[in-house]
Amino acid sequence: MKALRVYGPKSIKVDEVVEPQIRDDEVLIKIKYAGICGTDLHVYRGAMKDRVKYPAVPGHEFSGVVVKVGKEVSWIGEGEEVVANPVHPCGRCVACSAGKPNICVNFKILGVDIPGVFAEYVKVKGDKVYRIPKGLSLRNAALVEPFSVAVHSCRKAGIEAGDTVVVIGQGPIGLCTTQVAKHYGAYNVVALDVVRSRLDLAKKVGADEVINPLEVDAVKEIKEMTGGVGVDKVIETSGHPQSLEQALSILKPAGRVVLVGLCFEEVKFHSYPIVYKEAEVVGSRVYVDEFPRTLNLISKGYLKPEPLITHEMPLIDGDRAFRILEDRLEDAVKILLRP
Amino acid sequence: MKALRVYGPKSIKVDEVVEPQIRDDEVLIKIKYAGICGTDLHVYRGAMKDRVKYPAVPGHEFSGVVVKVGKEVSWIGEGEEVVANPVHPCGRCVACSAGKPNICVNFKILGVDIPGVFAEYVKVKGDKVYRIPKGLSLRNAALVEPFSVAVHSCRKAGIEAGDTVVVIGQGPIGLCTTQVAKHYGAYNVVALDVVRSRLDLAKKVGADEVINPLEVDAVKEIKEMTGGVGVDKVIETSGHPQSLEQALSILKPAGRVVLVGLCFEEVKFHSYPIVYKEAEVVGSRVYVDEFPRTLNLISKGYLKPEPLITHEMPLIDGDRAFRILEDRLEDAVKILLRP
Amino acid sequence: MKALRVYGPKSIKVDEVVEPQIRDDEVLIKIKYAGICGTDLHVYRGAMKDRVKYPAVPGHEFSGVVVKVGKEVSWIGEGEEVVANPVHPCGRCVACSAGKPNICVNFKILGVDIPGVFAEYVKVKGDKVYRIPKGLSLRNAALVEPFSVAVHSCRKAGIEAGDTVVVIGQGPIGLCTTQVAKHYGAYNVVALDVVRSRLDLAKKVGADEVINPLEVDAVKEIKEMTGGVGVDKVIETSGHPQSLEQALSILKPAGRVVLVGLCFEEVKFHSYPIVYKEAEVVGSRVYVDEFPRTLNLISKGYLKPEPLITHEMPLIDGDRAFRILEDRLEDAVKILLRP
Amino acid sequence: MKALRVYGPKSIKVDEVVEPQIRDDEVLIKIKYAGICGTDLHVYRGAMKDRVKYPAVPGHEFSGVVVKVGKEVSWIGEGEEVVANPVHPCGRCVACSAGKPNICVNFKILGVDIPGVFAEYVKVKGDKVYRIPKGLSLRNAALVEPFSVAVHSCRKAGIEAGDTVVVIGQGPIGLCTTQVAKHYGAYNVVALDVVRSRLDLAKKVGADEVINPLEVDAVKEIKEMTGGVGVDKVIETSGHPQSLEQALSILKPAGRVVLVGLCFEEVKFHSYPIVYKEAEVVGSRVYVDEFPRTLNLISKGYLKPEPLITHEMPLIDGDRAFRILEDRLEDAVKILLRP
Repeated sequence: MKALRVYGPKSIKVDEVVEPQIRDDEVLIKIKYAGICGTDLHVYRGAMKDRVKYPAVPGHEFSGVVVKVGKEVSWIGEGEEVVANPVHPCGRCVACSAGKPNICVNFKILGVDIPGVFAEYVKVKGDKVYRIPKGLSLRNAALVEPFSVAVHSCRKAGIEAGDTVVVIGQGPIGLCTTQVAKHYGAYNVVALDVVRSRLDLAKKVGADEVINPLEVDAVKEIKEMTGGVGVDKVIETSGHPQSLEQALSILKPAGRVVLVGLCFEEVKFHSYPIVYKEAEVVGSRVYVDEFPRTLNLISKGYLKPEPLITHEMPLIDGDRAFRILEDRLEDAVKILLRP
Repeated sequence: MKALRVYGPKSIKVDEVVEPQIRDDEVLIKIKYAGICGTDLHVYRGAMKDRVKYPAVPGHEFSGVVVKVGKEVSWIGEGEEVVANPVHPCGRCVACSAGKPNICVNFKILGVDIPGVFAEYVKVKGDKVYRIPKGLSLRNAALVEPFSVAVHSCRKAGIEAGDTVVVIGQGPIGLCTTQVAKHYGAYNVVALDVVRSRLDLAKKVGADEVINPLEVDAVKEIKEMTGGVGVDKVIETSGHPQSLEQALSILKPAGRVVLVGLCFEEVKFHSYPIVYKEAEVVGSRVYVDEFPRTLNLISKGYLKPEPLITHEMPLIDGDRAFRILEDRLEDAVKILLRP
Repeated sequence: MKALRVYGPKSIKVDEVVEPQIRDDEVLIKIKYAGICGTDLHVYRGAMKDRVKYPAVPGHEFSGVVVKVGKEVSWIGEGEEVVANPVHPCGRCVACSAGKPNICVNFKILGVDIPGVFAEYVKVKGDKVYRIPKGLSLRNAALVEPFSVAVHSCRKAGIEAGDTVVVIGQGPIGLCTTQVAKHYGAYNVVALDVVRSRLDLAKKVGADEVINPLEVDAVKEIKEMTGGVGVDKVIETSGHPQSLEQALSILKPAGRVVLVGLCFEEVKFHSYPIVYKEAEVVGSRVYVDEFPRTLNLISKGYLKPEPLITHEMPLIDGDRAFRILEDRLEDAVKILLRP
Repeated sequence: MKALRVYGPKSIKVDEVVEPQIRDDEVLIKIKYAGICGTDLHVYRGAMKDRVKYPAVPGHEFSGVVVKVGKEVSWIGEGEEVVANPVHPCGRCVACSAGKPNICVNFKILGVDIPGVFAEYVKVKGDKVYRIPKGLSLRNAALVEPFSVAVHSCRKAGIEAGDTVVVIGQGPIGLCTTQVAKHYGAYNVVALDVVRSRLDLAKKVGADEVINPLEVDAVKEIKEMTGGVGVDKVIETSGHPQSLEQALSILKPAGRVVLVGLCFEEVKFHSYPIVYKEAEVVGSRVYVDEFPRTLNLISKGYLKPEPLITHEMPLIDGDRAFRILEDRLEDAVKILLRP
């Protein structure tokens, strides 16, 4: 089968590789749409060498059709349209034992630790597969993964109807989060980004207010917006090292900051607002059981993937797709590859 | 009446001042024991000029006897031995409305924003007064305030029987916290401090392990102690800017860090463990309704103030008491003044 | 001033009574709209004799205009349009101390324990008054109280985007709850009632499905609707003694039942599903700090009082208004009185 | 190998049966001590015919020594002393997906749904096996299962230092719960049972107060004990249908009732205290990841199995052991069988 492989920094080829063989508890899926994510860009840049074995097939967001079913898998049949949870927890560590496979200490994910979905076929464990609800297209279903990340982080945030929520960063995850936060009944969702086109998109998908911190003093603006009281929740999706200091200064007493974006630089901030406000800073990593919930929300039209899909191209154009994202061209947000 | 007053940096006099007049909803208390706390040292150093009006009477930890009762106060009588919650929330702000007076945005506390307890008498609102249970001495009851801080922070930590808990800092609050954490059923309480005498005291009041980070690599030591798994909770009472980085690196997946100690320096740390571990960093400020609970625990002997009381001296020796603490002399932990 | 007074079972007169005199921390409000609630019907029936002193002025849902302001109240002025929280907690009991004034053990409420709002004027403590946001009419603002009850119960339910929520009972509180649950992002809100017109209204204000348990087997229907999996949350507003048994049988593992409706009859049920499913049955009583949050949600149009207001009549027609509700005539839901 | 088999109501034989064959992910354990539990009595009585296939080998509490290790199991070796979690969740249902395998809707447990441990050998999945800490005897380790149930229920109760906790029922689970509640720092643990010898035992293992509801009015007694305020938590282990009504009447505002004991009779109670107090009634089923935590607590001497072990006898005397428990003879609490 054909598969897009990264050989090293910014070096991509579409190769002929061996088709995966399934075991009795696995299914084989023919991939229809596969989305490119920030993690894939990391692989593309040659980072994460401790986890990625080059040449590597990236990709973990996808939808497809089941073409082969292991004999222990009774709940899904050939020909069914599905998505699949790409995360493979170990099942035995302290996190898995406590029912938190998303923070498994031996965590493996498609497209990083094991071959990914920028290929014609992928095999996954049968219990990771979810049927796409009727009426939801394969194209839109391909975005269930980033939307599940957003649903998980909004659950971690504990958003309540009437909250004011700030979403820092309006990349794909941020734009999903803005939508989910709004759908949770937030009174006011304030979207932050430094790119105008992304703020326009944020507005389009439901943000009540958008702020470009390069243009105005975001902290001052948000404080005024809340009459000095502060916001209920901040969800950080950009990974920017200054976000935490800003988040704490705009937070209401007993407010919560959820970190979703990864930041590998040193963060500098003042911690005393955490004490004075009894603020909570909590992490959110991927998802636990959010796939079926998110599929439902998308299929009923409550969450809208379509505005986020700026490009769709064949797998063989993968190299160009990666360059568009890497160089931030063409106002790209989510690019779908078709194998 | 006599009152100890701070005139400016390290300048103390015991003066004759006017006795407080109570209103109908207040009571007048004759102070028997008053403990010196870190906040009092801040006042002594002349800091917090935006809040403190010099000359100032510091002090907010105390026990005493009711000598006058306002006519609206029916639940307490003259001659009764009491302690009192020194925190005065506004009752109207967003925090107070949500039932969190401890993070009131207009927070006032005895000895900082209003005259304190290093005096012969103090007046407080009748609903802030708690009767001392039978069998508990006025001397020991004077420590209900710092122990309530510790109980509140252990509640915030959500300590569960069997947890491994690290308490950073073994000053008065840290030593109270070590005791409370142990009383919550922790399997292992690890106490950290850079002063040997305080570690000895920590051991004496129940710490399972003590570590001096100046002598060994505390992070490495604790990781080994937990077989690489990490600890369930870290409670930070020292206010040291490096604690957060250390806390996150020794934390178990889904673990929690509670910040109690205030740090006004810039904190530098890496935030990605918060995401990877879905860790929680939360603040803990004073207490809400912990006074009666803590009084009970002390009176039954479950929490032990006595080992923390290293000095007791008359109010007129207050100047010397402050110098002992300021210069970290005589292995002082808690000094009680007797007006 | 004029006030509607209940003299005994179903005996009402509009009398001339003395206008209330405010204290320094109170304000006097000229009532514009006052809603009749189930509690008022209890007073009308002559029940609650241990709490109500007849002749009694009922009523606690209202909007109005400030006409006099005590000198300690600086945050509101004469002429301002306001609503007010009618609940008066004691401030000292174990519940109040813990920040839960809504379950105060000495709880007093306008129209039951103290004179209510079916009158020309009412006095309330200044800190219970909330300014009506611009653009929200006095008529609609009068419903902030029942909507706040619904917001509080949905917060207690912990509704998450994508949940299936069953709301038992579609009286005024139920219809508010259906709206709030939907606004919290529920995937599916199933409304139950035995009155067709109320189910129609439920549908109109957002219910995804409506069920009349007199016509179909509601338990069977709901189980099928969820593919046998069960629902995430049930909110019980009817006070019916069979609701709990039904709620537990349609609940998903780890689901939650919130009881809002009061039932004074003996409830019979099987409790083992609570153990097997680790289900949670929790109570929800009035509200804590939900008034401003709810005002915002109504003023932005997210929650809609208008469809619930079926009648508006002058205070002097109060007798007829009560009879309409008592005899369940004219498909009445919420009747507003205008003094 | 030898195995105790129940053929029908109160009909037991010790038979020669085939030794279990392990798969690659399983281990074979030679059983050293096996405790008889209430569930085993149900099997003995011939109940649960929908789940149990007679003749059946009951038993799920045990300790033993590993004698054979599947080749996929790397973390445990032959000759090691172990205990094992007897619960087998399906891994795919809505509960398992949400990280709650203890409420798996397809739940299987040793000794009920699959052959149990009243035999010479048992096979279990490798990831269910826990090494017994040094210094903990096989005899005492055999009680890790009921103590894990108690730890789980106390976690569900959210016991805090200083709480007053009532434990209804002082059978084996109740006696474990009393100990764990006390170890969580409860100020006051009140133990209820109708059998004097069990109350004596409760007192011995740490109960602060014991009450026999046949001798005194337990509700009145407990109300007085708390000065009318009520208790923080009630943990129900007896399965008695009147417990819920009693629990709610002695509960503090915002208190919590945890149901552990199963009751298959109809429960009659008044639900309005749940609303008025915003009380929480929650279920607790077996355990999730409590085994290692509980092993630690027992091995350090914080929880004490020894006083609960009233009998130890060879497997061939199993029939007598069951009769002793069934007829409540010899003040039996926990009987250990030695195969």
